[in-house]
Amino acid sequence: MVAEIKALVFDVFGTVVDWRSSIIRESREIGAAKNINRDWESFADGWRSKYGPFMDKVRQGYLPWTNLDDLHYMALEELLNEFQIQDFNDNDKETLNKAWHRLDPWPDAIPGLNRLRESYIIAPLSNGNLALLTNMAKKAGLPWDCILSAELAHAYKPNHEVYTMAAQLLSLPPSQLLMVAAHPGDLIAAQQAGLHTAFVPRPFEHGPFRNPNTQPIDRFDIVAKDIIDLANQLNYPRVSG
Amino acid sequence: MVAEIKALVFDVFGTVVDWRSSIIRESREIGAAKNINRDWESFADGWRSKYGPFMDKVRQGYLPWTNLDDLHYMALEELLNEFQIQDFNDNDKETLNKAWHRLDPWPDAIPGLNRLRESYIIAPLSNGNLALLTNMAKKAGLPWDCILSAELAHAYKPNHEVYTMAAQLLSLPPSQLLMVAAHPGDLIAAQQAGLHTAFVPRPFEHGPFRNPNTQPIDRFDIVAKDIIDLANQLNYPRVSG
Repeated sequence: MVAEIKALVFDVFGTVVDWRSSIIRESREIGAAKNINRDWESFADGWRSKYGPFMDKVRQGYLPWTNLDDLHYMALEELLNEFQIQDFNDNDKETLNKAWHRLDPWPDAIPGLNRLRESYIIAPLSNGNLALLTNMAKKAGLPWDCILSAELAHAYKPNHEVYTMAAQLLSLPPSQLLMVAAHPGDLIAAQQAGLHTAFVPRPFEHGPFRNPNTQPIDRFDIVAKDIIDLANQLNYPRVSG
Repeated sequence: MVAEIKALVFDVFGTVVDWRSSIIRESREIGAAKNINRDWESFADGWRSKYGPFMDKVRQGYLPWTNLDDLHYMALEELLNEFQIQDFNDNDKETLNKAWHRLDPWPDAIPGLNRLRESYIIAPLSNGNLALLTNMAKKAGLPWDCILSAELAHAYKPNHEVYTMAAQLLSLPPSQLLMVAAHPGDLIAAQQAGLHTAFVPRPFEHGPFRNPNTQPIDRFDIVAKDIIDLANQLNYPRVSG
């Protein structure tokens, strides 16, 4: 398998970056500046919990194509209402919404990606829009070779066309791509589109008290504990059988 | 003007890379390996001269959307016929066609881009397809923040939608983009789409005996002698008026 791989495409939110800590921190900061006290952990979790349902509105045709920045903004307005926060003006909301462009990488992400980049094309394949992913990469120093986004297919993962689009744009057969993600659903959809898969569980994606993902993992080509371990496994593949 | 600019988008063939020297060299190498003697300068110029006409077939609807790798290949087959070269097999043709993924940058390109990257988002905005531009960047070390290609609009420059797509994907108004090119036609089209423009003449793009481009240049926001000079002018803008 490994000999065939030419490009690695990565889920980003949760897999490469720790969205939760970053969103809690920026929400708390804007709140503090306005003397607003809330449970910002719940606020961050609540925002993220609207991510799937808002994308569903696009997937199911209730909304025309809408990029993730705009979905995040719509979700934020709902959330502020639920948290009874009225004092964020348009500028505050825009600033907070852009916190998704400034997420911090997991500690292993940059050293791991730098090693992988020596041997493979590496790119995000995220539901984040291209500007979000580009700004994030620039701020965090993520060394992508190019930015691939669901926005380029006008569809959201796990829809088939996102994975197919990635292979087409890289001019590679799907089997030469390795999809790397912390979420089994993303990987299963990638498999169905013909990509190879690497599962990188992130047990603390949803905070310190959540359980690690315990889905059966033997269906994926690689299971790695982080992105450095992924680079190790690809450089020194285990003899199989 | 300069204060408004957030992103620089670059024409690539001729502006950032010296396609002619690279294509001459690789053509000559493959020819030598097959004991084929031809005028490889004319061969490279002939290949490039088919670039516009083949894109026209797409622009005018005689061909459905076809990416540049495939147009280059169709042009190569015509060219080999014209040069009465029969001894290139499919593998040779594929290798030679991929020479467009391995073009050398002009000497000022990488130092200039590295400086510009500190202050701006930088991206190609080329008729080259995404895989071509990604492979070229990786080989040459072009430090793009993301890869923008006409392929993402399924249209070729100077069609309006290519420039508009770039602004949309970067989530910026067109006036916050600076299009950088060695070709006035590209810049005029960018202007018509609302972008700012920088003209970087490359008098030796077509070889040592061609004249520099002498089109009137006062319609562009910036005229720079190379990409380092462009960085200088953007960092220390002249007082206007």
